[in-house]
Amino acid sequence: MAASPGGRPAVVLLSGGLDSATTLALARAEGYRCHCVSFGYGQRHAAELDAARRVAAALGAAEHRVMGIDWGGIGGSALTDSSIAVPESPTEGIPVTYVPARNTVFLALALGWAEVLGARDLFIGVNAVDYSGYPDCRPEFIEAFERLANLATKAGVEGERFRVHVPLIHETKAGIIRRGLALGVDYGMTVSCYQADAQGRACGRCDSCRLRRAGFEAAGVTDPTRYGA
Amino acid sequence: MAASPGGRPAVVLLSGGLDSATTLALARAEGYRCHCVSFGYGQRHAAELDAARRVAAALGAAEHRVMGIDWGGIGGSALTDSSIAVPESPTEGIPVTYVPARNTVFLALALGWAEVLGARDLFIGVNAVDYSGYPDCRPEFIEAFERLANLATKAGVEGERFRVHVPLIHETKAGIIRRGLALGVDYGMTVSCYQADAQGRACGRCDSCRLRRAGFEAAGVTDPTRYGA
Repeated sequence: MAASPGGRPAVVLLSGGLDSATTLALARAEGYRCHCVSFGYGQRHAAELDAARRVAAALGAAEHRVMGIDWGGIGGSALTDSSIAVPESPTEGIPVTYVPARNTVFLALALGWAEVLGARDLFIGVNAVDYSGYPDCRPEFIEAFERLANLATKAGVEGERFRVHVPLIHETKAGIIRRGLALGVDYGMTVSCYQADAQGRACGRCDSCRLRRAGFEAAGVTDPTRYGA
Repeated sequence: MAASPGGRPAVVLLSGGLDSATTLALARAEGYRCHCVSFGYGQRHAAELDAARRVAAALGAAEHRVMGIDWGGIGGSALTDSSIAVPESPTEGIPVTYVPARNTVFLALALGWAEVLGARDLFIGVNAVDYSGYPDCRPEFIEAFERLANLATKAGVEGERFRVHVPLIHETKAGIIRRGLALGVDYGMTVSCYQADAQGRACGRCDSCRLRRAGFEAAGVTDPTRYGA
């Protein structure tokens, strides 16, 4: 898929994982000029940022930026605090991999960039079916953010309307994979693992790895994930 | 005002300026244990972060953290992009000192910290009277954020309720100054100027300086601001 300079601008949140890669492919297929953003927020590994760069280039993003968040050492999540272990078996309720207010922070930063770009469309690959129970992946959260965006911004005050697109929200992991494959997404480029190694190889045991692997199985396609030791 | 280890915890956004110092004093007077947060977000000068540290210590904050935001070079505001000049005379509409989605980003980060702390109260010194026309200082923005906070978080899903306190929202600058003085706030410590020098001395000409100076005049008290060249 070649880069297209045309189209309406959109900001696409890109983690380097399977869902956001599919979301970028869908936004491109709808004709958007995609300005992708990833976040360095103290996560355990940089492999997902490398993956995001590769995915952005492969899927014809207009540009890719990395924004940085320094939480000032507050901890509070297994993904940002190395003293909390990533669970390797299913847990009850909202897991310790939940990062407090993460999607609120990410969407807020993306909104700021959208306003600078003159973009009114944001894309985020949240999913409320095969997910980990995070509150900020639910439709009611997205609707509340959209409402906030239109009150928070100069563009909103001037009568413009921001829209947060969540094309995968009601999709199963297998369904996401099928849609992405149909658009030529190479999932071998993506990294979903919470604790991938420096080469981007997945652990195969964390919640995110389990959901991903089950998705490939249910879709009936070969899992291209590179697993480590 | 001595530091108090007791009280309900609250997260207080502290910029180093006049409004947020007053807000901290009010939160302390209500008996909250105040966890203050300031943001390094590429603003033109570090003097306001120095001021925030002094204010937090003087007003008995339990702690003070600085979180960092790297916008990835998106620009778009006179406060974060040195190629855009800070206006030195009044302008029409929302000024170029508006930072896209800034308060949304700040409140989102503060919300994350509140969740880690087990705090349900956030304080922010936004003001909709003597202000610069920023959309994210209006009551409807704050209400929408509060609603979002309760959908975005684990605590919200579990039935807890976050509250965003805006004790100054309907207050004039003179009224804010009178309330702060009654609580012992030393405004000589605070820096409101958009382009203070390295010693924290104000320009006296930007929008923020003009509103502040007029506030001291209207309150009938001596302006303790240190002005530079």
